[in-house]
Amino acid sequence: MNIKVIAFDADDTLWVNEPYFRETEEKFCQLMEDYMPRNSMDKELFKTEIQNLSLYGYGIKGFTLSMIETALRVSEKTVNIDVIEQAIAFGKDLLSRPIELIDGIEAVLHALKDRYRLVVATKGDLLDQERKLRKSGLLPYFHHIEVMSDKQEADYQKLLRHLDVQSESFLMVGNSLKSDILPVLALGGHAIHIPFHTTWAHEQIEHHVEHPNFKQETIISDILQHLL
Amino acid sequence: MNIKVIAFDADDTLWVNEPYFRETEEKFCQLMEDYMPRNSMDKELFKTEIQNLSLYGYGIKGFTLSMIETALRVSEKTVNIDVIEQAIAFGKDLLSRPIELIDGIEAVLHALKDRYRLVVATKGDLLDQERKLRKSGLLPYFHHIEVMSDKQEADYQKLLRHLDVQSESFLMVGNSLKSDILPVLALGGHAIHIPFHTTWAHEQIEHHVEHPNFKQETIISDILQHLL
Repeated sequence: MNIKVIAFDADDTLWVNEPYFRETEEKFCQLMEDYMPRNSMDKELFKTEIQNLSLYGYGIKGFTLSMIETALRVSEKTVNIDVIEQAIAFGKDLLSRPIELIDGIEAVLHALKDRYRLVVATKGDLLDQERKLRKSGLLPYFHHIEVMSDKQEADYQKLLRHLDVQSESFLMVGNSLKSDILPVLALGGHAIHIPFHTTWAHEQIEHHVEHPNFKQETIISDILQHLL
Repeated sequence: MNIKVIAFDADDTLWVNEPYFRETEEKFCQLMEDYMPRNSMDKELFKTEIQNLSLYGYGIKGFTLSMIETALRVSEKTVNIDVIEQAIAFGKDLLSRPIELIDGIEAVLHALKDRYRLVVATKGDLLDQERKLRKSGLLPYFHHIEVMSDKQEADYQKLLRHLDVQSESFLMVGNSLKSDILPVLALGGHAIHIPFHTTWAHEQIEHHVEHPNFKQETIISDILQHLL
């Protein structure tokens, strides 16, 4: 490996994210128990999110709107208005959460910062991701922050052009095989997968990756053995 | 002027935007007439938007959530659930609008594209701005698209660094004195103001600008006399 640029995914790679969404879904489904059992409600919410994804994109505001839309649909517009109020409050709460860093991430960035150009490559709401980066204290480690509307091959291609780096000198580190690993490998880049204990259903794929440019590790500090 | 980079604001500079929001607000206030007169309702909605701005940022999803929140507050949670459903539909409708280009913009970009590096500098939802650019057919004219979470001096400073251009070689063209003109002048850049007939209250300022680097013109093609 002759890596020049290392890009880190943000949510669930730099800091905890998905568990907050799961927790919020749980509370929302509980509020809706009068209308539908929790398990089915969860599925209905997911259905709405996927339907809205091309219009809303990723992030908390779209998630909040999807909660409200699902509450209306599932209740056939009989939902108690308190549920709508609560959904808005849940969204604001998510947007105001303190940042919980992934164990060991700061030491990893510190060890790498003088040897590589470090960047963040994340999707989601622009303002929200900037807010989290600022709050995280990790901003000084990064040369560039790229908030992408999606993480498909074409999006990474744009990023590589933008960073003026060849794919064979580019390493992506992230928790989603679908978004962080496969598109980068397809472009000839390198990728290290650090699975997180909670993954959104939309990011889950059944896929066994075998590729010379691919590695899987358990915790973030495991990547250092390949890079120092 | 020794301009190298010309940055264009997007909403109401490249294409029509604000009138769609005004139209939506009008429809929303009409739905709420049982609870509050239109004029006061408009003010309440604006109040909610400004309160939520630091959390939601600019864009349609935040606007939709603010409509819903205002409907709950103003009606003291007695609002008919149809209003909530309509607000969500209004938001989706805004996100799916066809693009209506500002008269003459394509000819202007065509005339400038080989002499200057043209970029877009806009705020709003990342995905939504990308969608509008794609639909507009204007993408090939631009060297770079910057979706910013805000347009204050520090945001432009970051953009200039990113584009690797000195402020005295940078020209911003836009319809908002507050967001497109004043911060750029403050950094030593150049700015041309093309007012649009409709401006969001939050962008309105009482300000008479006199500055050697500032020009005001009536329509977008007027900028060519300074640049060709």
